[in-house]
Amino acid sequence: MNNVKNLSDSNKVFYDLKDAIIKSGLKDGMTISFHHHFRNGDAVINQVMSVIAELGIKNLKLAASSLIDVHEPLIEYIKKGIVTKIETSGIRGKLADEISNGLMKEPVIFRSHGNRAAAIASGELNIDVAFLGVPSTDCRGNANGFSWEEECDLLCGSIGYAMVDAKWAKKTILLTPQLAEYPNTPSSITEDQVDMIVLVNNIGDPKGIVSGATRYTKNPKELLMAEMTAKVIDAVGILKNNFSMQMGTGGASLATARFLKEIMVNKGIVASFALGGITQQIVEMHEEGLIKKILDVQSFDLGSAHSARNNRFHTVISASQYASSLKTSAVNSLDVVILSALEIDTSFNVNVLTGSDGVLRGAIGGHPDTAAGAKCSIIIAPLTRGRIPTVVKHVDTMVTEGKYIDILVTERGIAVNPQRKDLAEMIMKAGLPLKSIDELQQMAEKMVGCPKPIPKTNRIVGIVLNRNGELLDKVYQVLEEQ
Amino acid sequence: MNNVKNLSDSNKVFYDLKDAIIKSGLKDGMTISFHHHFRNGDAVINQVMSVIAELGIKNLKLAASSLIDVHEPLIEYIKKGIVTKIETSGIRGKLADEISNGLMKEPVIFRSHGNRAAAIASGELNIDVAFLGVPSTDCRGNANGFSWEEECDLLCGSIGYAMVDAKWAKKTILLTPQLAEYPNTPSSITEDQVDMIVLVNNIGDPKGIVSGATRYTKNPKELLMAEMTAKVIDAVGILKNNFSMQMGTGGASLATARFLKEIMVNKGIVASFALGGITQQIVEMHEEGLIKKILDVQSFDLGSAHSARNNRFHTVISASQYASSLKTSAVNSLDVVILSALEIDTSFNVNVLTGSDGVLRGAIGGHPDTAAGAKCSIIIAPLTRGRIPTVVKHVDTMVTEGKYIDILVTERGIAVNPQRKDLAEMIMKAGLPLKSIDELQQMAEKMVGCPKPIPKTNRIVGIVLNRNGELLDKVYQVLEEQ
Repeated sequence: MNNVKNLSDSNKVFYDLKDAIIKSGLKDGMTISFHHHFRNGDAVINQVMSVIAELGIKNLKLAASSLIDVHEPLIEYIKKGIVTKIETSGIRGKLADEISNGLMKEPVIFRSHGNRAAAIASGELNIDVAFLGVPSTDCRGNANGFSWEEECDLLCGSIGYAMVDAKWAKKTILLTPQLAEYPNTPSSITEDQVDMIVLVNNIGDPKGIVSGATRYTKNPKELLMAEMTAKVIDAVGILKNNFSMQMGTGGASLATARFLKEIMVNKGIVASFALGGITQQIVEMHEEGLIKKILDVQSFDLGSAHSARNNRFHTVISASQYASSLKTSAVNSLDVVILSALEIDTSFNVNVLTGSDGVLRGAIGGHPDTAAGAKCSIIIAPLTRGRIPTVVKHVDTMVTEGKYIDILVTERGIAVNPQRKDLAEMIMKAGLPLKSIDELQQMAEKMVGCPKPIPKTNRIVGIVLNRNGELLDKVYQVLEEQ
Repeated sequence: MNNVKNLSDSNKVFYDLKDAIIKSGLKDGMTISFHHHFRNGDAVINQVMSVIAELGIKNLKLAASSLIDVHEPLIEYIKKGIVTKIETSGIRGKLADEISNGLMKEPVIFRSHGNRAAAIASGELNIDVAFLGVPSTDCRGNANGFSWEEECDLLCGSIGYAMVDAKWAKKTILLTPQLAEYPNTPSSITEDQVDMIVLVNNIGDPKGIVSGATRYTKNPKELLMAEMTAKVIDAVGILKNNFSMQMGTGGASLATARFLKEIMVNKGIVASFALGGITQQIVEMHEEGLIKKILDVQSFDLGSAHSARNNRFHTVISASQYASSLKTSAVNSLDVVILSALEIDTSFNVNVLTGSDGVLRGAIGGHPDTAAGAKCSIIIAPLTRGRIPTVVKHVDTMVTEGKYIDILVTERGIAVNPQRKDLAEMIMKAGLPLKSIDELQQMAEKMVGCPKPIPKTNRIVGIVLNRNGELLDKVYQVLEEQ
């Protein structure tokens, strides 16, 4: 139809990423953003950066919800001065090694998922152009982490981190392999937030979503701790009708769901909601009627990604609704969260960011958000991992403050934060093996000795912010081995 | 559970509206906002204003999505200087009469639904405190226009106008008669947008949603025009698989759906989506598989309100996703919109705001947004109403510019905008009674004579903005009858 009215109605669809980037007005010194819902399968960051490099744009701040092994090519873009600042929840792999060894002039800013959402909403972190890979969008930008048209292999379920970027970025560009029929509703991202849609061959491999951190454990030590954790949760009176929970990543915390389920079935208890990174196990409990609702900021496996499409009360939520501290968010209504730790110290401070060699190797994620929000936060961690102690006198990097951690479950006993005498009493009454955190630290030390201080330089390579955006800790450049 | 961590986690629930208003920091000169999803059943504006009056706060700007007969008490608050500025999409009843007669010192700003959403998002209209009545919310502010817990009598379906206010207001206060179980998900408004929740006895009467403007017509003239309109839509080639449509309010435009349905069934055509104010008729077509998806910014009757809860592809959308001109919105993907008019002139300009006496009596609504966005916009209007001509030489108040109107259907013939020769040709080929707009105007004049100019003063009582927020027309104070 020949329609004079719609001539000015700009077409949003581009077939060349380069054209879209030029049209976005991206310039030296600006901030670009990405999400990590495809985790190690992500194909967007490297693809976009290669075009940006081609265009000769430099000095960018890259604000990703997280960076993973697959983003190793960023090393070259940093060396060339194309990326000069990074904000992220975590970094892994070769890129993390290089940054720990002094690759960047500016320290990386590490934010929790909740703080990232708050910083974007408050304008503290201003995104000029967001590049968001989406499994489905129509030609106007109504987008989802799955396809309504048919059950598709290309999906990531929730696109909760991307929802924040789409809402606040000055320009939002979606990348997708093909267009869905209009309107692609209901949708997590809506067209009034979207400037351009670029058709690309590949946005990511859903197989990359399932990582080691979210795989089902058969490790007997992890299973022992998981069972103990379920007993702790039962002992402290959380397991009542309408309780709520979040399971962090890590074999033991995921396995806890299995043991909880047994107790719930035996006692006839139904949970009001499960929050967070969602796994197939949680989905099964929802489908069996044991969990009324799921709030999903990130689908941790393909089972949960499909469920976000198929189960009406499995709701995709934004990182803001998940964990922002500006008003309230779902973390504030959590009864219990199960989290992991690379290190936990005798003041209950937790490190999930740097390894025993001081090198970046993890992600803050929602760790401090959920720990601060939940009525009871539980760390599951073995006393030692190989020759490396987990329970230590001082964590190498503070990510979650001890005042937010209530209980530590190890394979050798349970420690309770002294500020939670109420919990300690209940755990003792239940006959569970209560220890002091100092005892656990000393056991670890006996087993593997006292670790030597990590040799570091004075140069700051990372800044860790707390969930309110205040300085919490610094990560220093490691001293290269001689 | 005694939990030191959550002491700082502020409780959002208030039992006294006064306490909430005080806590919001509302002060003289600020802007407050309201939605009109309960239409003439609304109980929020009068309730909130009475407490504000009690608190002695003055000089407020009241930004409502629309004002209706029930808001007559505002007259007193205006007289007392409590409300000194108004922005709205429309005004009706006694309040409208008084404003037309010079009640306010400042002219009322009239915005379309799309322009209101854009003005709020761009910061042109800054809301300090939004007061939003919601049929259901949990204690954190996850809110809907219906209840998930059970089919409830208290519902309004979509809360699409309120979604914009909740997203952008500095403080958002929800009013509700009782709290739903947490989490009240999925939800149209999310807790990260909400500051306070006030439990009140009454937020509105759902029976007030169905007004004269949305009732099913039995008027033979309206039915004739509706049937003609369906034939026009068929004639101009819109009725293809995956076409999209919006029916405005008004008996004839709503009745058009019935005749369209017959043609669709006969031809085996399925629509991709229906947009807008949604009625039971549209819901039935969706449930019968004739319309794949519904995008609902406002539920026009209780049938559609229930459907917004029960049909997964009946999606509640915000006024921004509906009609904002900032990026794109659903109106840009409309094939056809059926609209009404109080007056249409020989340049196809439309007035839906002031009556034949020059007095305010209507609402802009989404009229200019949908007319500008749709590939084909059709006005249905009788040549005359009683002794008042509808087709005139010059509209009293311009609300939608003639360049956005394609076709006028009257009971005496069809006129096509000269810029749409393509449409005129197809209508002629189909043997439908094509006339020029001047012919129709002259017929009207013959029937009821040429109306006398409306006696007015020089004082401006209203400013009509176009959908981009630019001045389109002015409404003048009427001269009181001698």
